[in-house]
Amino acid sequence: MYKVDLNSDIGESFGNYVLGMDVEVIKYITSANIACGWHAGDAMVMDKTVTIAKKLNTAIGVHPGFPDLMGFGRRDMKITYEEAKNYIKYQIGALWAFAHSHGVKLQHVKPHGAFYNMAAKDSQMAKAIAEAVFEVDKDLILVGLANSEIIKMGKELGLKVANEVFADRAYNADGSLVSRNIKGAVIHDKDVAIQRVVRMVKDNMVTSVTGEDINIQADTICVHGDNPSAVLFVQEIRKALEDEGVKVEPMSIFIK
Amino acid sequence: MYKVDLNSDIGESFGNYVLGMDVEVIKYITSANIACGWHAGDAMVMDKTVTIAKKLNTAIGVHPGFPDLMGFGRRDMKITYEEAKNYIKYQIGALWAFAHSHGVKLQHVKPHGAFYNMAAKDSQMAKAIAEAVFEVDKDLILVGLANSEIIKMGKELGLKVANEVFADRAYNADGSLVSRNIKGAVIHDKDVAIQRVVRMVKDNMVTSVTGEDINIQADTICVHGDNPSAVLFVQEIRKALEDEGVKVEPMSIFIK
Amino acid sequence: MYKVDLNSDIGESFGNYVLGMDVEVIKYITSANIACGWHAGDAMVMDKTVTIAKKLNTAIGVHPGFPDLMGFGRRDMKITYEEAKNYIKYQIGALWAFAHSHGVKLQHVKPHGAFYNMAAKDSQMAKAIAEAVFEVDKDLILVGLANSEIIKMGKELGLKVANEVFADRAYNADGSLVSRNIKGAVIHDKDVAIQRVVRMVKDNMVTSVTGEDINIQADTICVHGDNPSAVLFVQEIRKALEDEGVKVEPMSIFIK
Amino acid sequence: MYKVDLNSDIGESFGNYVLGMDVEVIKYITSANIACGWHAGDAMVMDKTVTIAKKLNTAIGVHPGFPDLMGFGRRDMKITYEEAKNYIKYQIGALWAFAHSHGVKLQHVKPHGAFYNMAAKDSQMAKAIAEAVFEVDKDLILVGLANSEIIKMGKELGLKVANEVFADRAYNADGSLVSRNIKGAVIHDKDVAIQRVVRMVKDNMVTSVTGEDINIQADTICVHGDNPSAVLFVQEIRKALEDEGVKVEPMSIFIK
Repeated sequence: MYKVDLNSDIGESFGNYVLGMDVEVIKYITSANIACGWHAGDAMVMDKTVTIAKKLNTAIGVHPGFPDLMGFGRRDMKITYEEAKNYIKYQIGALWAFAHSHGVKLQHVKPHGAFYNMAAKDSQMAKAIAEAVFEVDKDLILVGLANSEIIKMGKELGLKVANEVFADRAYNADGSLVSRNIKGAVIHDKDVAIQRVVRMVKDNMVTSVTGEDINIQADTICVHGDNPSAVLFVQEIRKALEDEGVKVEPMSIFIK
Repeated sequence: MYKVDLNSDIGESFGNYVLGMDVEVIKYITSANIACGWHAGDAMVMDKTVTIAKKLNTAIGVHPGFPDLMGFGRRDMKITYEEAKNYIKYQIGALWAFAHSHGVKLQHVKPHGAFYNMAAKDSQMAKAIAEAVFEVDKDLILVGLANSEIIKMGKELGLKVANEVFADRAYNADGSLVSRNIKGAVIHDKDVAIQRVVRMVKDNMVTSVTGEDINIQADTICVHGDNPSAVLFVQEIRKALEDEGVKVEPMSIFIK
Repeated sequence: MYKVDLNSDIGESFGNYVLGMDVEVIKYITSANIACGWHAGDAMVMDKTVTIAKKLNTAIGVHPGFPDLMGFGRRDMKITYEEAKNYIKYQIGALWAFAHSHGVKLQHVKPHGAFYNMAAKDSQMAKAIAEAVFEVDKDLILVGLANSEIIKMGKELGLKVANEVFADRAYNADGSLVSRNIKGAVIHDKDVAIQRVVRMVKDNMVTSVTGEDINIQADTICVHGDNPSAVLFVQEIRKALEDEGVKVEPMSIFIK
Repeated sequence: MYKVDLNSDIGESFGNYVLGMDVEVIKYITSANIACGWHAGDAMVMDKTVTIAKKLNTAIGVHPGFPDLMGFGRRDMKITYEEAKNYIKYQIGALWAFAHSHGVKLQHVKPHGAFYNMAAKDSQMAKAIAEAVFEVDKDLILVGLANSEIIKMGKELGLKVANEVFADRAYNADGSLVSRNIKGAVIHDKDVAIQRVVRMVKDNMVTSVTGEDINIQADTICVHGDNPSAVLFVQEIRKALEDEGVKVEPMSIFIK
């Protein structure tokens, strides 16, 4: 039977600043990536987010970012191997405290923004992150761009990994994402996006921006909860998958 | 047999800034209070500090502070009950990740600076901190000013508590510390300080600034590692205690 | 002729976080208090906000806050006299750079949140702020709660001052604001609020929460732009004032 | 007559953290680059540093850095053109407030760390910085690596520029600094360093790491005040230059 996880970045509010329709989108996803106070989120938001996720049985994961609140963790920072490791560990721990307080387990770690993108390509960054996860808790699932460096490094270390795909993004022939600066990087037609998602999940295939069909493993699909139409789209993706006989459930159930 | 713990604030460097003679002082203490990146410390410093403490068999504890790096956590901040709880939890978790990575257990939690001082007097702040510790890990020892609000609240919740005394500080007749703004608040004569410490540990008595002998429980003594003479003083206190037949060991051995 | 200024806090977004309907509300006010990156705002937001204010001929002022982004500058912090002075200076300078780049002058300084509230009551805090403004630029108008300590200190130093009143807040008999924790602190009936504002501006009188009519000088009225109904209310206040023959213009025109 | 300026990074302490022997080194230099609270420094330190510089008639300049206190501004951050501009402006303004309070003028702007290094090579970063300086104050001298992109961009805009050389660093044949990761990057022999400095100042020549003599303009020499031997070296450089008939004075005297 086909299975897939739906993940979304949650808990990105900070202090007086509210971001994202967390309470809405969290109902339709199976895994929540919770910000840990570096690129977004704070201790109050983390506690509240874990509370909501627990109530709805949404699995929770760590969403560590660069120490760059001003840039929302989206700007490349040239940090060292050791810095990358320790930054990941710190943020896993911070979220662990809230999860543990609420009696829930951490399911996964998915680096955020520039951390995610650098780790998809840079094998040293990828290795540092994978080692950090391994050293803190070997049972955590490492989530990264499908078939990228971080997936490779996670596997090498013996971690469970989840290949992530994007419903609304175009792929290059080598499996990397088309840069947002390039026209056609984002797929705006919902129906096309949904068909692509279904195909990635069921056939492990997607058509690249240059026309080739490429192999891609889809363990988890990244979705967004920024605005009402994004939340609606998540519902539609979920429904389409279920109509196609795909079971949508937390990655920890089927990734072993 | 008499027993006491010697604790010191460790790991207060930050980024390029070095503070404290950690490597020197850590040899002579039994418990290290490790800063968690809010008032001092960062992920790199935390990892390094846990590494050193483990090597020397020094017990480690969490030293959470206010979100005020600029003020080194020494300025009162009017935070809410929930904020206090979540700020403590976050910092416990952050240090937990490093302890867990290195295969060592967290022994205690001692709030820092203004957090410590406010919790000694303000029962709501004290309760918030005690609850945070309890909810994250019931086995952690809560360290606070001897006989103060936080000790009371910790006991009420069923936490193990450690009454902390200061070698170099004068006490009021009610057991509170004489404010640093008042003359005579700090005891500069080393011999007097050592005699007072020994008496507090063996007889549970100290002479207040107004001349009365007061009861005080001394589970752990706060010492400093800011400079060479401070480190020397720690050695002297330890030797004096041992010469007096006091066993100096981590609080977790004798606080049950 | 009656004259009054309408001021609002503007430029409180930060990085990826958007706060306030700045572009809407700025059309109806005469003075914009611009956050300077400590409690809110950042360099990008400051530049953008000054650009908009200049285009609409809205006077700009400095809105300095505590170094507490996480608490939005709303939490009391026990800072020293010198810290208060230097924190104000730093933030005046930061905004000055953007104003100067765009060829506009800074009109005023209005402390934010807890800084504002502490300065209304604490004469040392008030004096520190007034001195900071005086030392950086004697021509800046100091804005504070009508008849409060900061107004007194500003006058004593020889600064121009603007007494600020609130349309939607109840006053105590001594002219202080009724604390938000007390029922009746906020006036929800728009018509009542508008009548009060008009009376404060024209008659320098307001009825306190305990029923006494008290004297109050209204040089500038604080309004908000948080949401559509707040923006609408600003338009209504402005229209009501103009219908009553009050000229609504930047404080620098009539405060000498 | 030969003339040169000696500059050093000053005011890099932060809160409770002390860095550098500012009070010692400032006596021997002619221009102080003052940190502005982003990579180092804070409002208290800035005020104190300007006070000392004024007393000793040392010219003061802005030393803006990346928003990365944890990394001391030494890590490359991929910021946009507009971000670079506004980050520079903000920090110029912040220091301006203290300079203006003390009745002294800002002399120059020298970007710090990664900002400096990126601006030496990246023409867009260089242009953004130069434009920021130009828009805030056309009279400020822009300091950058001799003959690098930032010098070029400053000149193109019509700014006064100061070519900076390093006494203790080896140069590549193209005039760039040998990377610190490469052996031989730092010149440890004091006499050699001093001879090189004198030659750069008097003959505008230096021998590159590969043996070629290259042209280099030396308007200002970067020196350090981190420790006693560094401070001693500054004195020695200054004495050697004066013995060779070079007048050591603030860059603003001879750069027009």
